[in-house]
Amino acid sequence: MIGPARTPPPPYFAVIFTSMRTEQPGDGFAETDARLFELAQQQPGYLGYESAGEDGLGITVSYWESEAAIAAWKAVADHRAAQEQGRARWFDAYDVRVTRVERAYSFTRGDT
Amino acid sequence: MIGPARTPPPPYFAVIFTSMRTEQPGDGFAETDARLFELAQQQPGYLGYESAGEDGLGITVSYWESEAAIAAWKAVADHRAAQEQGRARWFDAYDVRVTRVERAYSFTRGDT
Repeated sequence: MIGPARTPPPPYFAVIFTSMRTEQPGDGFAETDARLFELAQQQPGYLGYESAGEDGLGITVSYWESEAAIAAWKAVADHRAAQEQGRARWFDAYDVRVTRVERAYSFTRGDT
Repeated sequence: MIGPARTPPPPYFAVIFTSMRTEQPGDGFAETDARLFELAQQQPGYLGYESAGEDGLGITVSYWESEAAIAAWKAVADHRAAQEQGRARWFDAYDVRVTRVERAYSFTRGDT
């Protein structure tokens, strides 16, 4: 798991990546997943990252300042290579949803 | 886990709920979680639901036709009661982000 993310006041953007893993994803998935998280953090416009997985279903949400930042991240060479590996070996299915965060609120225990 | 969700072409809306569970959430969490999922499915404008949890971090994404549908769901009595229980017992922290899905694409193994 990675998260929760601390994000600024809206508006900003979120990419919701929902995936179903193959039964035998093979080598490299966990390493690539960790490496992509490191890479994403270095991207211009990166705001945060959250990830949880259970029984083969994974939900990863990444947060970005702009749609341009999302497009740039999608085009990063190592990210593109991972997308190809994902389709070839790791995922039976996935959905990518690019969203604009309109409003947000949070709760923290102990806040007054 | 619940998911993946099948949603129509954008635009539509997604609520990203990210939570950190308390160490001792006590009784009722799993039952309430399951009941809320059943209730949400009966709401007007409901489109889908995805949920995964790991090491105390939970990510739930619900999909809706409109912001009005989201507001109506937030106000449902059983949902409001669950929100109160969540703050009182189940969660150390959570974030709710209401987003508009601008574009989406998906991959399914075997599709041509």
